[in-house]
Formats: sequence, C-alpha cells, structure tokens
Amino acid sequence: MMNFDNVRVVLVGTTHPGNIGASARAMKNMGLERLLLVDPALYPHADATARASGADDVLAKAQVVKSLDAALTGCALIGGTSARRRNLTWPELDSRQFAVRAAELSEHSKVALVFGRERSGLTNEELERCHFLVQIPTNPNYSSLNLAAAVQVLTYELRMAAGVAASERHPGRELPPALAEEMTRFYTHLEQVLIEVGFLDPNNPRHLMRRLRRLFNRVQPDQIEVNILRGILTAVQKRKGRVGNNSR
Amino acid sequence: MMNFDNVRVVLVGTTHPGNIGASARAMKNMGLERLLLVDPALYPHADATARASGADDVLAKAQVVKSLDAALTGCALIGGTSARRRNLTWPELDSRQFAVRAAELSEHSKVALVFGRERSGLTNEELERCHFLVQIPTNPNYSSLNLAAAVQVLTYELRMAAGVAASERHPGRELPPALAEEMTRFYTHLEQVLIEVGFLDPNNPRHLMRRLRRLFNRVQPDQIEVNILRGILTAVQKRKGRVGNNSR
Repeated sequence: MMNFDNVRVVLVGTTHPGNIGASARAMKNMGLERLLLVDPALYPHADATARASGADDVLAKAQVVKSLDAALTGCALIGGTSARRRNLTWPELDSRQFAVRAAELSEHSKVALVFGRERSGLTNEELERCHFLVQIPTNPNYSSLNLAAAVQVLTYELRMAAGVAASERHPGRELPPALAEEMTRFYTHLEQVLIEVGFLDPNNPRHLMRRLRRLFNRVQPDQIEVNILRGILTAVQKRKGRVGNNSR
Repeated sequence: MMNFDNVRVVLVGTTHPGNIGASARAMKNMGLERLLLVDPALYPHADATARASGADDVLAKAQVVKSLDAALTGCALIGGTSARRRNLTWPELDSRQFAVRAAELSEHSKVALVFGRERSGLTNEELERCHFLVQIPTNPNYSSLNLAAAVQVLTYELRMAAGVAASERHPGRELPPALAEEMTRFYTHLEQVLIEVGFLDPNNPRHLMRRLRRLFNRVQPDQIEVNILRGILTAVQKRKGRVGNNSR
C-alpha cells in the first residue's frame, strides 16, 4: 500500500516562483504534501502563492534547504527527472516504471522525486545522488516539459500506481534499501579507501566514482549490505601499512 | 498504430489565455498539434504566446470556432474531461482507459479530447456531445486540476498508450464508429420523430434525450448502423398520418 506521506517532491534551483506554486497544486491534486525547495531563486513570492491556488497549505509547509543532500535525508529511493541527456549513461526508468517501484517502496520507506532547473535541469553531480534517471516519454523534437507539468505527470503516475499497488500486491524485499545519507557515507568512505590504496587517481577522480555510484545505485543495497560493505572498507583501512601479514 | 494527426484537443470557453498557451506546449511535448478553441474569452493574447514557449507553431495553427459541434466535426470518439460530478451518470472511463481506446481508434478515425472552462467545466449539454466522461484520478479533497495540467496528463497518457498500442495490437472493429456530425443528425432526427409521434413531451424534453444519447454513445454505432437507424426514423415519419395500413 502506497504511503503518500513517505513521498517528497524536491525542486532544485527553481528560477520562476510561479512554477513552485503550480507544482504545489499539482502535488496536492494527486494527494502529495511534502515539498522541499533546494536554493530557489525567488521564494517566497506572490507568483508562487497565486499559482498554488487552493494548495497554499502545501506551500506553507514547504521546506527550503541549502543542499540537495539535505533534501534527501532519510530517502531510500531517489528518482531524478531531467530533460538533459548525459554523455555517461545512468540507470533509467520511465515515469511509469519509477512510479510503480516508488508506490511499492513507500509503504515502509521514504521516496524522493527530484526536479532540476527550468533551463539546465540537474547537474551530473546532482544526478549522481539519484538511483535512477526518470524519463517522461516525449516528442523527441520538443522534449522539455514545463516544470510543473513534469511534477503533474510524475505525481499522477504515483497516484495511478497506488491504485494498481492496492489491487495487485507484490511480495516486497526483505529489507528496505539503505537511506540516502548512508549511501553518501558509504561512497565517501569508498572513495577515501580507493585513494588510500592508490587505485583512484585524485587528479581524475570523478569518472571512476560515477561508475561505482551507478553500479551501487542499481543494486540498491539494504542496510545490512551497506554495513557489510562499510565493514570491508574499514578492514581494508586497518590492514594498509601492515605488510606481509597474509602469511598467517 | 496511433496516428497523432487524428487526435485533436478542444478547449471550451477558456477564461485565461495563459492556459491556452500552456496547453499548446503540453500537447507539443507529447506530439499532438491539432488545437481547437471554442469561444475563448481572450484570444489571441500575449499570455498565451508566452506560456506556449516553443509551441507557438501549435498556437498559430489553432482554430477558433463558435460552437462545440463545429469543433467535433469528423470525430468518431469524443472524451469530455470535467471535474464536476453530474446528477445523471454518464459512461465514464479513467484517463488511462480512454487513452488506450483513443490510441487504437486513431489509426483510422478522428478522436477529440474536450476540456471545459476553468471554473465551471463542461455543461451537461456539452457533455452529451461526448461518448465518455474522462476522469483523471485525483485527491478527492482537492480534485480540480489546472486546465493545462489536465491537458498534460491526458496527452501524456495518449503517448504512453501509443507505445503500448504499438507493441500489443488488438483486432479492431469491422467499421469505425459513426462521425460526430452523423450522430448529431441522428439525435436531431430522433428527437423530432419522438415529438412527432407524441412520445416526447416538448415541455420536458431533456431528460429523455439525455438517456437516449447516453445509450447510443455507449454503443458507438458505426456508419451502416446509423444509416439503418436513420432509415427507421424516416420510415416512421412517412407512416405517420396513414392509419390502418397495417392490414396489408
């Protein structure tokens, strides 16, 4: 059963406050109320309030935060929507596939839907915080949706998926995926260890780490699995410096 | 195979020109280009152009017409979206069900999606021109979508259905449903005959005709079937006045 309270919409660097208001309305129409704003250009603003129409309560509760990481705290599944195509491929789901997964997972875990800037979308660094790039199928000759329209489509798919999820239940996984901040700590730890062991060249670090993030995001390890991975990293760190102790 | 050229979006009595522009953008994002405006309050207007963004070509081609019937000429399937609930039930499909049907039918027939006024939706008389009331599932406590948001959801579902229709083809019906203007002529003819034969009380005509429209819209007769129905009506008209000729 979908839990709407466990789903948040995160708008990153929004330029036009009217789009924030229209997004709040789109959310409330579909039963969502948790809106987070990462570094909006103009907020609060009269245009936001006007376009929110009867969803001013969602707007009033919206949290403004400084970083995307702060907005993703506690989330086990993160989808990043963006019109921009990347040079490096990233795990991808279409809007419907993501919604089905999100509706299922939201029963016990927190889910975030991240929307980028009107003109430039999400940066690659921001996208790397997401498990999946969420693609809304569009006309290839005119693919850039208005921000609030994209919020409307995704939240609509969530509501539709909630109906489907209510009728055809799937057996869930044993444990929910690890939370975003645990994965962030894991990646930081991993990078540090890779540098320490001389595998990662700090002069060209991003390409390797991106590939590793992509790998682990696709796996979506649960808490116990992350604990194991972190344990391995710690063990590696404890062993380095000690040479020749593999003769035991 | 869905034929996007056979699908038109009809906006009835739109109050805010910005919503017309935003609807044009939503349509083009999903690959639709045929926009008809029935008696818009303010059009053309700078707000429409601004919100259309890169879809100004769709706006430039939009046709302004005086009546809903004029906008529906040639259409074999008509869906009317409206937030308002009616006292009389009408055949209803949700947005996804309608889109699947529309995508299939659009291969050979014209389809219309009709959207009502921002505040008051479609009148009952306008709804009776539609085969189905199309419902977008929403939060029951806040169900009124922005007009362009509703256009976005429905055109998105059409695009998704086009993908589905391309992969799982269903065998179609023998003949496409009769066109809207043929059905209008049929209903006019039927009403006239019902009054002529004294079955329909002209002092209280609407209730009966609505029920009959609902019935025939659900059936969606094809051209040959409508010809037969019209033939029956004509035959009835020819017979009235002649009494006692059933002895032959």
